[in-house]
Amino acid sequence: AGDPVAGKSKAAVCAACHGADGVAVIPGYPNLKGQNEQYLIRSLKAYKNKERTGGMAMVMQPQASMLSDHDIANVAAYFAQMK
Amino acid sequence: AGDPVAGKSKAAVCAACHGADGVAVIPGYPNLKGQNEQYLIRSLKAYKNKERTGGMAMVMQPQASMLSDHDIANVAAYFAQMK
Repeated sequence: AGDPVAGKSKAAVCAACHGADGVAVIPGYPNLKGQNEQYLIRSLKAYKNKERTGGMAMVMQPQASMLSDHDIANVAAYFAQMK
Repeated sequence: AGDPVAGKSKAAVCAACHGADGVAVIPGYPNLKGQNEQYLIRSLKAYKNKERTGGMAMVMQPQASMLSDHDIANVAAYFAQMK
């Protein structure tokens, strides 16, 4: 399982759109707080693998491409544990 | 804006995986309760338009293809207003 503390350090950039508390600050962006951890991993990998296009994928593909699989696990653990 | 009451009638099938209360009952599926309405609309349209592949898209593409844009707005309103 991912390390939420390590994930937090990688997730600072996420907060710009998804909120420091995981509640999106911009309409059309998903809340991440308490989201299913495995789903977060799958979604980030889908963006990284360019399996998600359209919508805001032009933002998320490059963001996800900068994360290793290890980083993705940690970031997912960080948002999943948020209350 | 969508009609959450009409959305509920279309969302019965969603509950099989995403939970009657919008909290996923299967690991790897996203919670939908209280999710951003515009994001839910974009996501369903992305599946319908086959812009999302990989992961569970093989499940969600056919599900979304059965929803009109009007249905999508209503289903999104339904999950977004869940507390």
